[in-house]
Amino acid sequence: MHDPLDNGTARAIWRGQFPRPANRQTVCVQGLGFVGTAMAIAVANARDEIGEFLFDVIGVDLPTPEGQSKVDAVNAGKLPLATTDEELVQAFETAVANNTLTATTDPCAYQLADVTIVDIHLDVIRGEDGQPTVRFDGFRKAMSVLGQTMRPGSLVVVETTVPPGTCEYVVRPTIAEALQERGLPEDAILIAHSYERVMPGKEYYRSIVNFWRVFSGTTEAAADACEAFLSKVIHTKEYPLRRLHATTASETAKVLENSYRATNIAFIEEWGQFAESVGIDLFEVIDAVRVRPTHSNIRQPGFGVGGYCLTKDPLLAGIGARELFGIEGMDFPFSSRAVEVNAAMPKRSVEILRQQLGSIHGKRILLLGVSYRQDVADTRYSPSEVFVNTARAEGAEVVCHDPLVAFWTEQMEHLPSEIPEPHTFDAVVFAVPHREYQEMDVTRWLGDARPLILDANNVLTEEQRLTMRQAGCPMAAVGRGNH
Amino acid sequence: MHDPLDNGTARAIWRGQFPRPANRQTVCVQGLGFVGTAMAIAVANARDEIGEFLFDVIGVDLPTPEGQSKVDAVNAGKLPLATTDEELVQAFETAVANNTLTATTDPCAYQLADVTIVDIHLDVIRGEDGQPTVRFDGFRKAMSVLGQTMRPGSLVVVETTVPPGTCEYVVRPTIAEALQERGLPEDAILIAHSYERVMPGKEYYRSIVNFWRVFSGTTEAAADACEAFLSKVIHTKEYPLRRLHATTASETAKVLENSYRATNIAFIEEWGQFAESVGIDLFEVIDAVRVRPTHSNIRQPGFGVGGYCLTKDPLLAGIGARELFGIEGMDFPFSSRAVEVNAAMPKRSVEILRQQLGSIHGKRILLLGVSYRQDVADTRYSPSEVFVNTARAEGAEVVCHDPLVAFWTEQMEHLPSEIPEPHTFDAVVFAVPHREYQEMDVTRWLGDARPLILDANNVLTEEQRLTMRQAGCPMAAVGRGNH
Repeated sequence: MHDPLDNGTARAIWRGQFPRPANRQTVCVQGLGFVGTAMAIAVANARDEIGEFLFDVIGVDLPTPEGQSKVDAVNAGKLPLATTDEELVQAFETAVANNTLTATTDPCAYQLADVTIVDIHLDVIRGEDGQPTVRFDGFRKAMSVLGQTMRPGSLVVVETTVPPGTCEYVVRPTIAEALQERGLPEDAILIAHSYERVMPGKEYYRSIVNFWRVFSGTTEAAADACEAFLSKVIHTKEYPLRRLHATTASETAKVLENSYRATNIAFIEEWGQFAESVGIDLFEVIDAVRVRPTHSNIRQPGFGVGGYCLTKDPLLAGIGARELFGIEGMDFPFSSRAVEVNAAMPKRSVEILRQQLGSIHGKRILLLGVSYRQDVADTRYSPSEVFVNTARAEGAEVVCHDPLVAFWTEQMEHLPSEIPEPHTFDAVVFAVPHREYQEMDVTRWLGDARPLILDANNVLTEEQRLTMRQAGCPMAAVGRGNH
Repeated sequence: MHDPLDNGTARAIWRGQFPRPANRQTVCVQGLGFVGTAMAIAVANARDEIGEFLFDVIGVDLPTPEGQSKVDAVNAGKLPLATTDEELVQAFETAVANNTLTATTDPCAYQLADVTIVDIHLDVIRGEDGQPTVRFDGFRKAMSVLGQTMRPGSLVVVETTVPPGTCEYVVRPTIAEALQERGLPEDAILIAHSYERVMPGKEYYRSIVNFWRVFSGTTEAAADACEAFLSKVIHTKEYPLRRLHATTASETAKVLENSYRATNIAFIEEWGQFAESVGIDLFEVIDAVRVRPTHSNIRQPGFGVGGYCLTKDPLLAGIGARELFGIEGMDFPFSSRAVEVNAAMPKRSVEILRQQLGSIHGKRILLLGVSYRQDVADTRYSPSEVFVNTARAEGAEVVCHDPLVAFWTEQMEHLPSEIPEPHTFDAVVFAVPHREYQEMDVTRWLGDARPLILDANNVLTEEQRLTMRQAGCPMAAVGRGNH
């Protein structure tokens, strides 16, 4: 690590490299992952009433090969993530063209920051006792760096999804310790929490600037500063900010949101199995139920739950209760059960294949879709991974395709660019409702092949289903028992 | 039972007793409980475009003392249920004044019916193996009566909440058997299913005529007949009907709705406990989360779940799977867990009192609210019952009050008409958010008494809370840890 420079020097050095108007505030974004990069772009596009840019944004990542490559990409004017959102691409280009966004692996950048937004990862792992836990080491180190470098009066906004209690029991004391070592008051840096509600896909950028924000501060002053900052970045007239009384409250709000979602998904799984068994169409039933405003959030059965958030966030409240508040026996049975049920869901599709084909050993299966969400290339914690590993372990040969994924990182697997011909397969599993699949001319694609068709995620249109059934394909579907 | 009369005779006899225009259809409502009575009133108020009444309605109940008293009430022009809904009262009076609603315990009435709506109870009990089950005996007998009496071509609409599969495996065969004994084709009576979504309270009547209806038939003809009938009673222009492909599907829709609701209530319970433990206000958090349209159905922590539906309906799908479809191991873990969690919820309030008072043995507790819902007199399966029984078993002296309940049937207990003075109580539990409690002048009511105040159900307004806290009352609340 660099020695902390006095701020005037650092700022001057920085300005020398990247000359900018002096009236702008500097915002660092710590961590250039999916959220951090998009957030950096949003802040770099914020303008005042007369259209002047408000912030100089510096994306900061670790000097690892991965971090360096993201930093290099940003500085070369290349977006360091794959996206289908044109608006995000354009906003990135605007920021680059106007020199409001740069990136570095040099933590000295934090010395320049009026605001640092924390967007680093905090993964859930299994502890030695089998309980879920988080490893705070890297997170604590990152907070230390902020405490060692940021100026008095500057603001830290934690955006990472964390166990409730983290701002109070990890962020605050870690920064306080670093400040004390600098001879500064332990509350010299303001600490706030405000979580993102980013939704990957075509409206990625909008889900940052056009969405309700919840925030809080460890002090009133911190909450005030966070509110002032967010008001410049988010369209708060249409999407008013919501201030909570404690950082633990807003941390809880975030994990509650995702726990609620995950539980609703897991809840419906049992009904999907029931529908398959008794010969009804649960999608039809759910359409009827959803008409009620009190039931509009009800979910559909499907292939499984993926992504970085829903697979782990429902465990964070329990981790916070046990590890940060020292509460025994608060096990959040619905939330933790939801994570288990959702993780096992892709195995249900394997089971249906087993029932329909007798055994899947030696059978050739075509899996269509490996990302975790429709029309998105993100394969993190994708249910397809569980499906593929389970089916291959049982001796099936699985060929995968995804219109948005050429190389499947998690499986280290190159995927074909075209949808494979169905002739050599015993079964075809439609796993992700990508537009390309829903627009397929299935008659043409099938030719004279008649594999078992498993619609594992309500992918096929009614017309596609009817066509394949009439062509004589054996049909099965998650959540549907009437074919 | 009467011998089935030939239909012409019966109709003539009936007309002789209650002369009516001959162009109206006759509708029987089987079972004059909360739902049946309201449904009978709604049908008896249905009119055509020029304002002519469409149906003669006959409410039919069993010749038990309870059934007879309801029948006598209707025929004497007295509404046989307590309600705060003025519109329901007026609609009843309109029906009585226009002679479109009568009642009887005589099953011959079904001979006159073009349509019979089934609104009899089907309770969930614990079987010998500890598993939840329903006793179909009474229900089967009721279906037999319809098969023995109703005319060929007439329609049965099952409105009772039943285990999925009931129309197919109980109603249809039972009616078919009775028809065969009459020498009639086994499908001579049309069988449909359409569930109600009645909501007790001030909009009871509207929740019948102004609400989306789901329906289905065991045959297309039955579904068509049901659709034609419902279109005359429900305001289907604003609230379109939704037809499902199987009676099992619409039976499932009903129990799914209530299972979803019950699970969402149970889910939030763990978060309420967490909030109490870590010192945050979960209501504030939930307000922030509910802003998202995808999270608008999230529930609040509270005192418990009561009423006839949410306490049992989540068990019906499992019962249907096991007993009607013979599926093993389909245990609906979320839905059945929800019933358990919700049933135990009032004990949480007892626990909070125990924590705050040390022990509740010998303590005097005032419980405000014994009905299961605000501004409603219905005490069926009220959480207050669980609270009272638990607290009394631990040696507490519990005095109860409810502005809408003078005699608490389930506890065989007369309640005071005024809210008791707080002076002699160690704790006051606000359990039901009746308007009378939310409009209390708490300063005046408290006087110089300073009992522990437990807001168990988000009853108190912020002002009331603040007033009592400032007055020096010890405060506690379900779902709130920051007092």
